[in-house]
Amino acid sequence: MKKIVTIGGGTGTFTVLSGLRKYPVELSAIVAMSDDGGSTGRLRDEFGVLPPGDLRQCLVALSEGNGVMRKLFNYRFQKGELAGHNFGNIFISTLEQVTGSLDKALDVVGKILNIRGRVIPVTLSKVQLVAELNNGKVLEGESQIADYQLVSKFGIKKIYLKPKAKANPKALVAIREADVIVVGPGSLYASLIPNFLVGGIGKAIIKSKAKKVYIVNLMNKNGHADDFVVSDYVRVIEEKIGKKGIFDVVIYNTKKPATSLIRKYADEGEPVGKGTKPKKGPRFIGADLLADGLKKTSKVDFIRRTLIRHDSDKLARIIAKL
Amino acid sequence: MKKIVTIGGGTGTFTVLSGLRKYPVELSAIVAMSDDGGSTGRLRDEFGVLPPGDLRQCLVALSEGNGVMRKLFNYRFQKGELAGHNFGNIFISTLEQVTGSLDKALDVVGKILNIRGRVIPVTLSKVQLVAELNNGKVLEGESQIADYQLVSKFGIKKIYLKPKAKANPKALVAIREADVIVVGPGSLYASLIPNFLVGGIGKAIIKSKAKKVYIVNLMNKNGHADDFVVSDYVRVIEEKIGKKGIFDVVIYNTKKPATSLIRKYADEGEPVGKGTKPKKGPRFIGADLLADGLKKTSKVDFIRRTLIRHDSDKLARIIAKL
Repeated sequence: MKKIVTIGGGTGTFTVLSGLRKYPVELSAIVAMSDDGGSTGRLRDEFGVLPPGDLRQCLVALSEGNGVMRKLFNYRFQKGELAGHNFGNIFISTLEQVTGSLDKALDVVGKILNIRGRVIPVTLSKVQLVAELNNGKVLEGESQIADYQLVSKFGIKKIYLKPKAKANPKALVAIREADVIVVGPGSLYASLIPNFLVGGIGKAIIKSKAKKVYIVNLMNKNGHADDFVVSDYVRVIEEKIGKKGIFDVVIYNTKKPATSLIRKYADEGEPVGKGTKPKKGPRFIGADLLADGLKKTSKVDFIRRTLIRHDSDKLARIIAKL
Repeated sequence: MKKIVTIGGGTGTFTVLSGLRKYPVELSAIVAMSDDGGSTGRLRDEFGVLPPGDLRQCLVALSEGNGVMRKLFNYRFQKGELAGHNFGNIFISTLEQVTGSLDKALDVVGKILNIRGRVIPVTLSKVQLVAELNNGKVLEGESQIADYQLVSKFGIKKIYLKPKAKANPKALVAIREADVIVVGPGSLYASLIPNFLVGGIGKAIIKSKAKKVYIVNLMNKNGHADDFVVSDYVRVIEEKIGKKGIFDVVIYNTKKPATSLIRKYADEGEPVGKGTKPKKGPRFIGADLLADGLKKTSKVDFIRRTLIRHDSDKLARIIAKL
């Protein structure tokens, strides 16, 4: 069976995994571990655990269990002292404390959710993402970086994990044995880059004989990727992995979202398509990757967060054919 | 297979179920639903759910799953905003909200914990326990009643559920089909009596052809059961069920706990044995029911709450022989 490894975290990876789960492939999801916002951040602060949120999304994506467990794991408390917390996050973090190991906790949750594949934290080190901007400002913590609107304006001088993080050996093995490695889509600083800042990950990808695939985002995030075109994303990620031309295939969207949707998201960002000039050649696969409006809305709540999003089936069809 | 129904809630029922689980019997645990203290009370207040705590204890007692899930369900948060909450309680309450029904939630949890038997809320009505004392004082809420130290002194004039509660049909069926009904041990006002205040439960017990067994507590709770002897417990419970002489068998402890332990628990209460004058005859089975000190301490945390406690195996052996 073809071994596919995704690298990312967050909703983008959720979408890719949800699509690929339907194919006869062996899936491993390598997940960024520097999230410190929201429910995840509160759990990290209080219990000193590793960040559960992105792991949870991947676990739910790979779940073949009944809808109840998926709904439970994505349940977000709306009121009271638990407001803002996500049940799945609390579950994973408590289990990490009970078992004394995130690895063991993920095994247990994987069984409960009946997942197809594996979810692998990129590192088991407890880290914060730190960005030094060219204007001297230092942003500590992934959520701070994500919230700071002037990242593009000043530019990032240096981005690193604090303290230095060692790769999870399971992640290195998965990368080494992969037939296909899929990076993205996902927030550059919240989901993608933190993976490549972990010692050993970039080298392992470069060394791996897998076909390397990059799925470009649909939207440029204001202040973080202003006026980015497809090749800008490729350049930024290749730089972090440590090798130019590392990707065999770059998949990007060619269909313009509805104008009404673009207008709705003007405060967040604009479509990558605008100004995109991909090089010709087999490396770039442009296609309609958009999810159709609300029709395919899953019952899983966080997929509703954005209306301009990748269609998991369209993505999976392209990846499965590679 | 012999059908045994326990009626109670809390640690006493946990102990009985833990012992009986090892026998080839069909177990149903009917559980009081008026708890409003601690983690359970907070969840009721915030989410308007039914009280999960006693259900959780029974689920864990019946679990044949691995130790991790049992530990997880009994995990109590020590710090942060979740401090005092119990993970299993949060799990049940969230699942009740996700599925829209406590019944469905218990099915799911039962599968995850791999339980042998069934856990049945005595009612699915949302109720508070109310006690009117002879001095005119009205105590609203089970935790208030449990905390009030002068219950014995003034005596309870009237105790009822507010609003009136209808029996869970599953509880009535279990009672009707039972071969053995085991009441207690457990806190009179927190675990036992609230079951019999639910409309239809007393009548169903009286009508049932099952052998009816009452397990008397080890300790009198100060202010609630001062100077109680075995027959006082029987009298109080029979009165609530609605028929004198309803019990075929009364099981009580004859072994005095170690003096050091008795001294340690002086603030909470004294052994029932003191002053006990059980009637002779086959209805009363006196035996050493004490758990041996700390030797058998389970890893499950709440069994450590009290050191003077029933031994689950000793109890189960007697019940299984009936």
